[in-house]
Amino acid sequence: MSHTIAEIAAALGLEAAGDSGLRVTGVAEPAMAGPDELAMAMKPEFAAQLGEGRARAAMLWSGADWREMGLEAALLAPRPRYAMAGLSAMMDPGQGHAPGIHPSAVIDPSAELGEGVSVGPLAVIGPEALIGAGSVIGPQCHVGWQAELGAGALLQAGVRIGARVRIGARFIAQPGAVVGGDGFSFVTPEPSGAERARGSLGQEGTESEQAWARIHSLGAVTLGDDVEIGANSCIDRGTVRDTAIGDGTKLDNLVQVGHNVVVGRNCLLCAQVGIAGSTRVGDNVVMGGQSGVSDNLFVGDNVVLGGASVVLSNVPAGRMMLGYPAVKMDSHVETYKAMRRLPRLLRDVAALKKAVSKLGGNE
Amino acid sequence: MSHTIAEIAAALGLEAAGDSGLRVTGVAEPAMAGPDELAMAMKPEFAAQLGEGRARAAMLWSGADWREMGLEAALLAPRPRYAMAGLSAMMDPGQGHAPGIHPSAVIDPSAELGEGVSVGPLAVIGPEALIGAGSVIGPQCHVGWQAELGAGALLQAGVRIGARVRIGARFIAQPGAVVGGDGFSFVTPEPSGAERARGSLGQEGTESEQAWARIHSLGAVTLGDDVEIGANSCIDRGTVRDTAIGDGTKLDNLVQVGHNVVVGRNCLLCAQVGIAGSTRVGDNVVMGGQSGVSDNLFVGDNVVLGGASVVLSNVPAGRMMLGYPAVKMDSHVETYKAMRRLPRLLRDVAALKKAVSKLGGNE
Amino acid sequence: MSHTIAEIAAALGLEAAGDSGLRVTGVAEPAMAGPDELAMAMKPEFAAQLGEGRARAAMLWSGADWREMGLEAALLAPRPRYAMAGLSAMMDPGQGHAPGIHPSAVIDPSAELGEGVSVGPLAVIGPEALIGAGSVIGPQCHVGWQAELGAGALLQAGVRIGARVRIGARFIAQPGAVVGGDGFSFVTPEPSGAERARGSLGQEGTESEQAWARIHSLGAVTLGDDVEIGANSCIDRGTVRDTAIGDGTKLDNLVQVGHNVVVGRNCLLCAQVGIAGSTRVGDNVVMGGQSGVSDNLFVGDNVVLGGASVVLSNVPAGRMMLGYPAVKMDSHVETYKAMRRLPRLLRDVAALKKAVSKLGGNE
Repeated sequence: MSHTIAEIAAALGLEAAGDSGLRVTGVAEPAMAGPDELAMAMKPEFAAQLGEGRARAAMLWSGADWREMGLEAALLAPRPRYAMAGLSAMMDPGQGHAPGIHPSAVIDPSAELGEGVSVGPLAVIGPEALIGAGSVIGPQCHVGWQAELGAGALLQAGVRIGARVRIGARFIAQPGAVVGGDGFSFVTPEPSGAERARGSLGQEGTESEQAWARIHSLGAVTLGDDVEIGANSCIDRGTVRDTAIGDGTKLDNLVQVGHNVVVGRNCLLCAQVGIAGSTRVGDNVVMGGQSGVSDNLFVGDNVVLGGASVVLSNVPAGRMMLGYPAVKMDSHVETYKAMRRLPRLLRDVAALKKAVSKLGGNE
Repeated sequence: MSHTIAEIAAALGLEAAGDSGLRVTGVAEPAMAGPDELAMAMKPEFAAQLGEGRARAAMLWSGADWREMGLEAALLAPRPRYAMAGLSAMMDPGQGHAPGIHPSAVIDPSAELGEGVSVGPLAVIGPEALIGAGSVIGPQCHVGWQAELGAGALLQAGVRIGARVRIGARFIAQPGAVVGGDGFSFVTPEPSGAERARGSLGQEGTESEQAWARIHSLGAVTLGDDVEIGANSCIDRGTVRDTAIGDGTKLDNLVQVGHNVVVGRNCLLCAQVGIAGSTRVGDNVVMGGQSGVSDNLFVGDNVVLGGASVVLSNVPAGRMMLGYPAVKMDSHVETYKAMRRLPRLLRDVAALKKAVSKLGGNE
Repeated sequence: MSHTIAEIAAALGLEAAGDSGLRVTGVAEPAMAGPDELAMAMKPEFAAQLGEGRARAAMLWSGADWREMGLEAALLAPRPRYAMAGLSAMMDPGQGHAPGIHPSAVIDPSAELGEGVSVGPLAVIGPEALIGAGSVIGPQCHVGWQAELGAGALLQAGVRIGARVRIGARFIAQPGAVVGGDGFSFVTPEPSGAERARGSLGQEGTESEQAWARIHSLGAVTLGDDVEIGANSCIDRGTVRDTAIGDGTKLDNLVQVGHNVVVGRNCLLCAQVGIAGSTRVGDNVVMGGQSGVSDNLFVGDNVVLGGASVVLSNVPAGRMMLGYPAVKMDSHVETYKAMRRLPRLLRDVAALKKAVSKLGGNE
């Protein structure tokens, strides 16, 4: 797979500079690039390392002085990081999924596969499942009873899609992702200690032990178009209605989305994020790695949660939040700075007490 | 699958009101219910939405005025959330696991399967494994050498049960759950930096690098009856004795239980909880999502950990804990409120210093 | 499998004491040991429980008075926990993987398997994959296109190795581990809210919604020799170059290593740790359970992170860190102690204000 600079520029709508017939076989970081690789020098600090490598061409920002960098050719992008998206798609050799149905796959005769679907070795497709045209079902995947996948899905190895789950077009799932496990919903015959703790905010007491009765998840999961889910991430089914995730939302690895949760469109949930049951999240929300949202809350549109933040109450639209419990980012920074001054403050107050006492103020 | 109101009432021991011959085909949230669906209106705030849907019957609380709500029939439950457990079990269509042994499953001839066991496509059952009567082994599961599953187990797709693991009756495992991975136990020839850090609480220093030697996990895992484990959760084997979890304890998704841990009965471990090696947890404990417990600790009966709390020392029975490090919930709330007042406190103390200085107190 | 005390002493280079011909069939904790089991009594507090069991022989520390403990024989180790590593390897019955290639495995004809490789039932080995001599590929594993595993690998059930991943010798992976999922890298056509939040540290605002474009991961993953990865852990591929982990580094369960991350040699990453994209970690670093490191940071050699710490800035070599955000352990302890005194401090300052006011200081 090789491309000329001119071909790439045409495909991605970028400006080609210099010898646009120069041919590249792959991409590389500037310091490690060989003479046939396109160096990814998307900012001046990256371009500074071009001299350590042997690249003859690079992806640069608009207006970059490529000649001064000793290059023979360049791609000039108004937003190079965005151009990287298209370029990486052109250059991706993928996982090598073969076309067609592997003979070892187990496909229920009542399942319906669209045109050009590929099913990998030892995959299982259950009864009445629908697989959209052009989808790739990787090795050892499972698509359950009556599950529906839209056109152009890509399931890497070992993905599990539960019964009755409905997924839109162009879905991508990394290895081990699970969509449609049962929700975690249990109830005791009498109110439990945890229920009482919520009511009283911390009243303690002994309590007689009770067994947990299981509330089955009768809902399923509905995912919009262009959703992506990371390795070993989990989206639980809803109790009565479906758990739902909107178009364009992306989940990283090891993310947990609880039962009944509704996540809007174009959100990013970074690795190890957890959203507890019945919480609603708006559109265009970004949750940093390891952040969490408690159950039955509302997080508005455009909210950004810093890494490892823990949301314990509703968040209005547009907020940048940080901390545990999460507060507005500037409040957090102010409180945090004050905390660092605490040991000195304690000494100051002790000195003041002594001084005031000497003045007779405490008598 | 459809049921009359009278049938449901009889099965669940509830009061039927109105036209008890009315037949329902499923359940729905009040605002989305069709005319043949039973609306789940378990509290007045849910019942208020009945008008938006078309339900003719609903699950309500005891004494609810169903006629006023425009219903033709009702199920009246003293604790509707508890009634939901039984109702959801009646209504659950499940994952469509077929009866019998799928021809693609690989079952070692020395494994013993009880009466009525179902084994899904491409599942593997190892040598000398024992599967209790009526169990369902889902597609692509693995049950290891000499592992034992009690009667009535339900393993969803892709569950991994390691060698010599012993599990009680009515076990449920969601997709990708792993029981019996090796414990994380390594040792250096000489005491390591982390060991010394524990001893000295933070004394730092350079140190010569050492390779980690692996301590193999010779123990296995023992789970009681009625245990449930969430998607992609992990329970490690013990080093010398078994890691153990008591009857009726439920684990949500992406939960980690380390080697040698002992968890009591009827606990709930919510999503992404982690319990480090050799910690003992009592009965009836509830751990909120993303909470964690450090290694070699003791957590007493009936303890409740708020979401994302991190336990760094032993917790007596009955405590409600919150924060990092976790403290009694009321202490946490008091400290937290004080922290929010910190920036103002700093200003107050600065003003006091100026005032006292003017009074001659600092001279 | 049984061994005499003399045989164990010779194999592990330990001192044998007493009846060294005594034969043991396994190991046990002191209180639970039978007469043919070797009691693991590696410290005086463990040895104190020997009386509750029936052990005739024990693993003890150098100089321990084994006769006084009523034993017939003993193994005396200068560092018993280290001796446990060798002993546990001798005693481990393993997972029962059979030798040879199981007939149900699907192995691409272009894959190359070294001498003595075992491939379990329903495993898939992709085109041009290389499996080193003596490796064990467990049931239902997947090794992708052009992936390379060094000699002596052990993959437990259901491990997923992506295309072009390169792994050194003696690799161990627990069930469900994923090496080589795609990185989580998305970009909007115009700068997004999260990008602007980073720039402005919290400036908020409305914003027009944008869809995320996917940056494909063109790099792979490179793991050194003697690396171990826990159950359901994930290591993502790099964007341009490989994500890389050095020799001897061990990852526990449910750990996340993001794209482009570089981790050094002989590190321990405990359960549920997360390292965000492009962060570099030195050698000999220990990260406690649930700790996290933000993206694009540097963590120096010999750093120790306490459990659940969250690193938001670079960490110099040798530091012991704790808290959120993580700070030097002693600073954290000092600040934390001061926080506990906050409610009292607030009362003190209120009293001072009153006293100073009475003295005329606030007028």
